[in-house]
Amino acid sequence: MSEDTEIARGRKTFSVLADGRELFYFDDAATGPDAGGPPDRAAARDLRALPPVSTSSTMRYDRVLAEWVAIAGHRQARTYLPPDDACPLCPSRDNHQSEIPAHDYDVVVFENRFPSFTLAPEPEPEGDDGLFVSRAGFGRCEVVCFTSDHDAAFSSLTPSRARTVIDAWADRTQALSDIAGIEQVFCFENRGEEIGVTLSHPHGQIYGYPFVTPRTRRALRSAREHLERTGRNLFADIVEAEIRSGERIVARNASWTAFVPFAARWPLEVHLYPHRQSPDLAALTDAERDDLSHIYLEVLRRMERVHDDSLPYIAAWHQAPVRHDRDLACLHLEIFSSRRAPGKLKYLAGSESAMGAFVNDVLPEEAAQLLRDARP
Amino acid sequence: MSEDTEIARGRKTFSVLADGRELFYFDDAATGPDAGGPPDRAAARDLRALPPVSTSSTMRYDRVLAEWVAIAGHRQARTYLPPDDACPLCPSRDNHQSEIPAHDYDVVVFENRFPSFTLAPEPEPEGDDGLFVSRAGFGRCEVVCFTSDHDAAFSSLTPSRARTVIDAWADRTQALSDIAGIEQVFCFENRGEEIGVTLSHPHGQIYGYPFVTPRTRRALRSAREHLERTGRNLFADIVEAEIRSGERIVARNASWTAFVPFAARWPLEVHLYPHRQSPDLAALTDAERDDLSHIYLEVLRRMERVHDDSLPYIAAWHQAPVRHDRDLACLHLEIFSSRRAPGKLKYLAGSESAMGAFVNDVLPEEAAQLLRDARP
Repeated sequence: MSEDTEIARGRKTFSVLADGRELFYFDDAATGPDAGGPPDRAAARDLRALPPVSTSSTMRYDRVLAEWVAIAGHRQARTYLPPDDACPLCPSRDNHQSEIPAHDYDVVVFENRFPSFTLAPEPEPEGDDGLFVSRAGFGRCEVVCFTSDHDAAFSSLTPSRARTVIDAWADRTQALSDIAGIEQVFCFENRGEEIGVTLSHPHGQIYGYPFVTPRTRRALRSAREHLERTGRNLFADIVEAEIRSGERIVARNASWTAFVPFAARWPLEVHLYPHRQSPDLAALTDAERDDLSHIYLEVLRRMERVHDDSLPYIAAWHQAPVRHDRDLACLHLEIFSSRRAPGKLKYLAGSESAMGAFVNDVLPEEAAQLLRDARP
Repeated sequence: MSEDTEIARGRKTFSVLADGRELFYFDDAATGPDAGGPPDRAAARDLRALPPVSTSSTMRYDRVLAEWVAIAGHRQARTYLPPDDACPLCPSRDNHQSEIPAHDYDVVVFENRFPSFTLAPEPEPEGDDGLFVSRAGFGRCEVVCFTSDHDAAFSSLTPSRARTVIDAWADRTQALSDIAGIEQVFCFENRGEEIGVTLSHPHGQIYGYPFVTPRTRRALRSAREHLERTGRNLFADIVEAEIRSGERIVARNASWTAFVPFAARWPLEVHLYPHRQSPDLAALTDAERDDLSHIYLEVLRRMERVHDDSLPYIAAWHQAPVRHDRDLACLHLEIFSSRRAPGKLKYLAGSESAMGAFVNDVLPEEAAQLLRDARP
């Protein structure tokens, strides 16, 4: 099964893996007079004999913190730091069948084989006296490979390839938003073995959550209070105040501003906001996506230059809930690293992990100066 | 300067370090017919030439999450994994002056030399348009050494020594609660190099925060809603429901029950509640403290037996705010480990760190069974 569709630029090809999981190739836009047509991705078939994906994921409601927790026992067996020649995210070769049937690709997105959530039917809430409430782990978990080059990094992509990744994120954000029961779509990259990344091939993930995440719920509560008190949008006011102050600005272009937040929790932390308030990546214009591809690479490279290319980081896209508060929220990216000095990580110890009270050892203005001084 | 006072059992002796920091010896209760009087701790003087503790800690208010973040730039220089013969938490010897002047001790508490908060005068709030608000990092950070034996662990203490630690926690909780401006007292132990512990000598910490922590504020909001809806205390209802269900119970005695919570976030997580609702450790009776010393050791030993003695963990005492909601909150201990299998840690990656959405790979009922089967 396959079908080709045009995305904002480039081309998207749909395919299905041996166990029924969906896979999408996103090819860079063909450019220049010599560029041929798109490669025939659909010709590649998954030759593996895979058992169907079986998950036993459930969600349980924590009455004390009023949050859902996903319990996914089946994930204990997931692939853990495989040798490079067994990388499941490299293209398939004649002697190695990976998760990607094609012998090459630009960007590829597919359903995670060890998902925290799946689109299984959602049963009714259960539980005895209301203190123990659980639901099936409904949702969607996808993997995004940024390049077929195992040894590359997001920061080493060309702007054109970064643009294809952005188009893939936007496309998947819209597709997952269209699924009834998915309430928030989260595109992110975990990078670095120091923070537990089990596959070194450059990749990110997309979660379609069946709830609005705890973090977003708290931010929306603040935004609602700010709107009622001032009549203005909290996020727009913060970006404006950061630009006016200037001392924490890291990078700017026509559509985006990157800064170290005033109350940064991490030794190296950058927030990236569009100048035009948008609910999610799918709502970005063509020009905003092009500008994003450049500033995203610049910010990542500046962060890596402060330490080195092995910098562990989490890059997290905060998007509006799918079905409400679309005007209250504001799309933005938060990138942070737990490295506080060469060879030293900031760990979330008692104060942070148990009490939610962060202690940051680095002054945000000094971090911003280091990032401005770094050559991207 | 020194003074001796009786604590619930044993004896407390006050002393001052060379840079003016306070230190308190807590000696085990003398027992048996041959027990002599308490050793003369006050005779030991700090012989070091120490510069005064200088801190530049500030707190900044995060408008989006409505939380205070501490910025403590001076802590970057703190002691990091010193060689064992330079351990600052061992007793002083003739050729090594440590943080503890005495040549031996049972339990000792002293002000942290690299504190996140200090009792410096608190200036007025500042900031331009209200989006950037900061305050001085007012508060108190103390270190608690559980034993003079560098190679021991909390789990290897005798019940009598564990009782002395409990009395020290209770004493310091009351003392810090008496300081105007301190709003919550947090006693905790971070254990294990894997989670960033920089000193291997068995020790914990006590934070006196100038605010009610984000985690406690959220729990109190749930407890208040539960009280309004049902007329009952949320925590008492949860403990009662866990006892009635039984499937997640780990250990019980006359005064305490330990269980894996229904919506556990961590591979190994145990909550320990007193049967009589108490606001904090200082409010525990003599019998409750004795019972606690036994069940605390039992729970730690069961957790370590599931893996091994190197298990990294955070043990966190949740106490009521000092000045409000004393009846709504309920003292309890939460112990959790990030180890999910031998050699494998659970990291807080994108979903947890950025969105607050936890995914736990271990079924709570299975974790409880492992803990019940382990020989303490």
